Amino acid sequence: MFFIDNYLVNNSTTKVATADMESLYRIFTVAEAPDSTLGQIEKEISENLAGFLNEHIVARAVSLGEIERDFSCPDMPEQPTFVSDHTQFLLDKLVANSVHTAAPSFIGHMTSALPYFMLPLSKIMIALNQNLVKIETSKAFTPLERQVLGMMHNLVYGQNSDFYQTYMHSESDSLGAFCSGGTLANITALWVARNNLLKADGEFNGVNREGMYRALSHYGYQGVAVLVSNRGHYSLGKAADVLGIGRDDLIAIDVDAQHRVLVEQMREKAAELASKQIKVMAIVGVAGTTETGNIDPLDELADLAQALNCHFHVDAAWGGATLFSNQHKHLLKGIERADSVTIDAHKQMYVPMGSGIVLFKQPGLAAEIEHHAEYVLRKGSKDLGSHTLEGSRPGMAMLVYSALKVLGRQGYELLINRSIKQAEYFAGLINQQADFELISEPELCILTYRYVPRAIKHLLLHADESAQTLINEKLDDLTRFIQKCQREAGKSFVSRTRLSSQLYPNQTITVFRVVLANPLTTEQILQDVLTEQAQLAQLSQFALPELNQILQRQAEG
Amino acid sequence: MFFIDNYLVNNSTTKVATADMESLYRIFTVAEAPDSTLGQIEKEISENLAGFLNEHIVARAVSLGEIERDFSCPDMPEQPTFVSDHTQFLLDKLVANSVHTAAPSFIGHMTSALPYFMLPLSKIMIALNQNLVKIETSKAFTPLERQVLGMMHNLVYGQNSDFYQTYMHSESDSLGAFCSGGTLANITALWVARNNLLKADGEFNGVNREGMYRALSHYGYQGVAVLVSNRGHYSLGKAADVLGIGRDDLIAIDVDAQHRVLVEQMREKAAELASKQIKVMAIVGVAGTTETGNIDPLDELADLAQALNCHFHVDAAWGGATLFSNQHKHLLKGIERADSVTIDAHKQMYVPMGSGIVLFKQPGLAAEIEHHAEYVLRKGSKDLGSHTLEGSRPGMAMLVYSALKVLGRQGYELLINRSIKQAEYFAGLINQQADFELISEPELCILTYRYVPRAIKHLLLHADESAQTLINEKLDDLTRFIQKCQREAGKSFVSRTRLSSQLYPNQTITVFRVVLANPLTTEQILQDVLTEQAQLAQLSQFALPELNQILQRQAEG
Repeated sequence: MFFIDNYLVNNSTTKVATADMESLYRIFTVAEAPDSTLGQIEKEISENLAGFLNEHIVARAVSLGEIERDFSCPDMPEQPTFVSDHTQFLLDKLVANSVHTAAPSFIGHMTSALPYFMLPLSKIMIALNQNLVKIETSKAFTPLERQVLGMMHNLVYGQNSDFYQTYMHSESDSLGAFCSGGTLANITALWVARNNLLKADGEFNGVNREGMYRALSHYGYQGVAVLVSNRGHYSLGKAADVLGIGRDDLIAIDVDAQHRVLVEQMREKAAELASKQIKVMAIVGVAGTTETGNIDPLDELADLAQALNCHFHVDAAWGGATLFSNQHKHLLKGIERADSVTIDAHKQMYVPMGSGIVLFKQPGLAAEIEHHAEYVLRKGSKDLGSHTLEGSRPGMAMLVYSALKVLGRQGYELLINRSIKQAEYFAGLINQQADFELISEPELCILTYRYVPRAIKHLLLHADESAQTLINEKLDDLTRFIQKCQREAGKSFVSRTRLSSQLYPNQTITVFRVVLANPLTTEQILQDVLTEQAQLAQLSQFALPELNQILQRQAEG
Repeated sequence: MFFIDNYLVNNSTTKVATADMESLYRIFTVAEAPDSTLGQIEKEISENLAGFLNEHIVARAVSLGEIERDFSCPDMPEQPTFVSDHTQFLLDKLVANSVHTAAPSFIGHMTSALPYFMLPLSKIMIALNQNLVKIETSKAFTPLERQVLGMMHNLVYGQNSDFYQTYMHSESDSLGAFCSGGTLANITALWVARNNLLKADGEFNGVNREGMYRALSHYGYQGVAVLVSNRGHYSLGKAADVLGIGRDDLIAIDVDAQHRVLVEQMREKAAELASKQIKVMAIVGVAGTTETGNIDPLDELADLAQALNCHFHVDAAWGGATLFSNQHKHLLKGIERADSVTIDAHKQMYVPMGSGIVLFKQPGLAAEIEHHAEYVLRKGSKDLGSHTLEGSRPGMAMLVYSALKVLGRQGYELLINRSIKQAEYFAGLINQQADFELISEPELCILTYRYVPRAIKHLLLHADESAQTLINEKLDDLTRFIQKCQREAGKSFVSRTRLSSQLYPNQTITVFRVVLANPLTTEQILQDVLTEQAQLAQLSQFALPELNQILQRQAEG
């Protein structure tokens, strides 16, 4: 019990709680009793996580507006609340209305189930509350993080042991950086690229000290550009904005039928930019596009980067873990030539949210973003914070390390291979359905498709472009309707996106997007997802009737 | 048991483990047994956190080099490891050599003890594994985070309930943003300031689209500057670098004897910059300097920002929580006039590492950093990710929310008041010692001091500046020596920094820095810290003998 007086949710009595120092000490020193609300929840999670989630997350649809009502009071709570009362509130209002990301039928986004051991290990990590910005608040966590960066560097670049002996624990070098996610990893990579391109030169003190305006003036550029396929992640646009490059100079290049960047078009664009005194600062290869899971021809991009003498970054936030699979790693051939690589451990490495990684091929590459302070990160120290975008940050490296050790490369290979096989199975299943259309074949474990009634499918095949556009607009409505209904029904979840497809040139269409990374997703679940979607289509009040009208007009005329 | 064959640490036998799918399913579905190594650790932490940390973190000094040997293999582990073996390794090599940040005698940095309930709640948060970038992977966590931002906004700006009703859950507005820490919060604030200053205008499409070079060309500026006291946090320099402003245009202004920025000097500097066509983009007030815990005259800075028509940001990462204290909140008077404010919940709000907050006074301020994507953050959605620097990120807002509820404003007031009182006690104690010198008086709960033998103290008083410099250099050696020895002995920890002090104009000196935020730190511990430091001084092989020589020469001549 925390405070001397109970905090009453029911305001009809005016008994008011007051905080006192004695009780306050207790929350720092005395654990919740095992039979308290919180103690019991913990026990439940420890013994049966899936059961806990299944039981406490409500499956039925609750509208956002309804949920907002429970989280609408802007007043700072004046009096304290009992932990048990608060926990019950969280259980009823927050946990109940959260998303069951670990559910085997939640196949719409990149967040999936976690291995069990992550939970107690996370608790140890939180209990230790280390701050990885400096050794004085992290000690062994600093060498541990450096080792994980070394292992991941080894996975991507495979240098010899002398290399790692020299650089892994070197205070003046950096094989990479941990950060909270792929967005910060991409920003860090492009920050490094920018500062290396526009570094000190003669009287000019470098972009880090003098800024973009004087940097471009000094070098005589009208702009600097980053080239990436039009499937590049939106974080790259954010990076271009933040870094003072400008979103317009993040140049989107077209893709082929497999959503892979057209390298020739990129080469031509680079030449065109050069003629305008716009310097290509970096080209970015995508290894696992967010929407379709395809991989750019990395080797060709490496050749181009070499020819342009620019930084080559690979955004493998999603696909990087494919390197664990001896069977599939060939798909990422060329990644070992990248100057920097982003990999998210909280995606296909099954680590909890908040663990991104950026790797640098050359250990000295990050020198241009190095920074120091008097009370930490002193020159010559091994403090990790001198080469990171973030300052204070938690010891997530411990969880990545544990995943690598407990699963081993072989364990990861099994998971990766299974995911890809599952996606191939689902693609096959969709292709067998008369009323569905596969939009993108899975290269990794992501695919897109939509519901198209068979008669409409036939019509689409023979329609001209303007008729196709009209039909596709109705189908877009239908896809949106089905996706929302399915999400709200709560049994299963697929996401949706808009993309261009070679099937319908010059159009973008709305599609279901599926990510098959949860090892607990069964074939039966995938079959059920399609069955439910076909049923939901029949409920559409607008899209399906309108499509039927189109069909009827077609039959008549 | 995870894999079919035991992984043997001892390589003398060549029994090799192989991963199989069956075992792999188990780590996603079957909890560790309560009597497993991991199960037992969890029990220990749940029942007695302090006991666990005291028992498992070794107090004796282990050199970093020694620790590195355990974290030096760069090879990706091929085979899996049993969870229990791995846990034992973590316990022996990582936990044992981590930093006991929760120890009441660890008073050197801003990381302190956590309330007990944070541990089971963190476990729930990790188990739910929500991704706050979008509603589809966070649902109720999104309104919850918006409510916490509303409450914190209310704490700082105190708008009326209509205001919060209108803006708290509005899809096109943002009262602030959660991020992993104060550095990202400061970068976000200055990003917002930059994009508002250099926004679209006529033919110019805004710095977000066109970049810094064209922005400055369009507006006719030679540069943009950020003004802050020379006590500003190093993250501001990083922000100036990242945002393309340049570190040289983060202008450091002198401080007074209480380490508060000299506003007149800032005004003069702004005028000087204007005459060079350098536009002041923002001025930053510091509310709790990292090194001495002092607070800038925020009201005067607000006046200046108004006169300069520039963004006013307050970095209250450390001191923001003082607003919970009715007794002390007057120290931050003027913060309510800031356009943006940084507050770290993982500092004086006692939330685990990884929870920074930036607040925006005007709900529309963040519109200039808004971004969208096709598969998430669609226009009109309430996805939080459309106004954050990070993409995917965890549901730390749940922990901040819980702290606010369970402690209440009154609970926080008790903690804040106690910390400041404790610092005042320690300052008094230092002043009573003949052989110590208080360098900065505590305004919040941070102070600096050093060991100065009484005879030397007397000498310093009457010495000329060059003699003072010589003596201070020896004292710096002594301070460094004592701080390192004390850290390595492991009983207690203070940090050290270099700063200028009115006591010795034109010099910087090395000092001990103490942060008294742990509510479990007793007066006895503070007495012991001084006793230990005085004893360590006697062990110095170089500094103290050299100081004695100076004294002797003085006596002779």
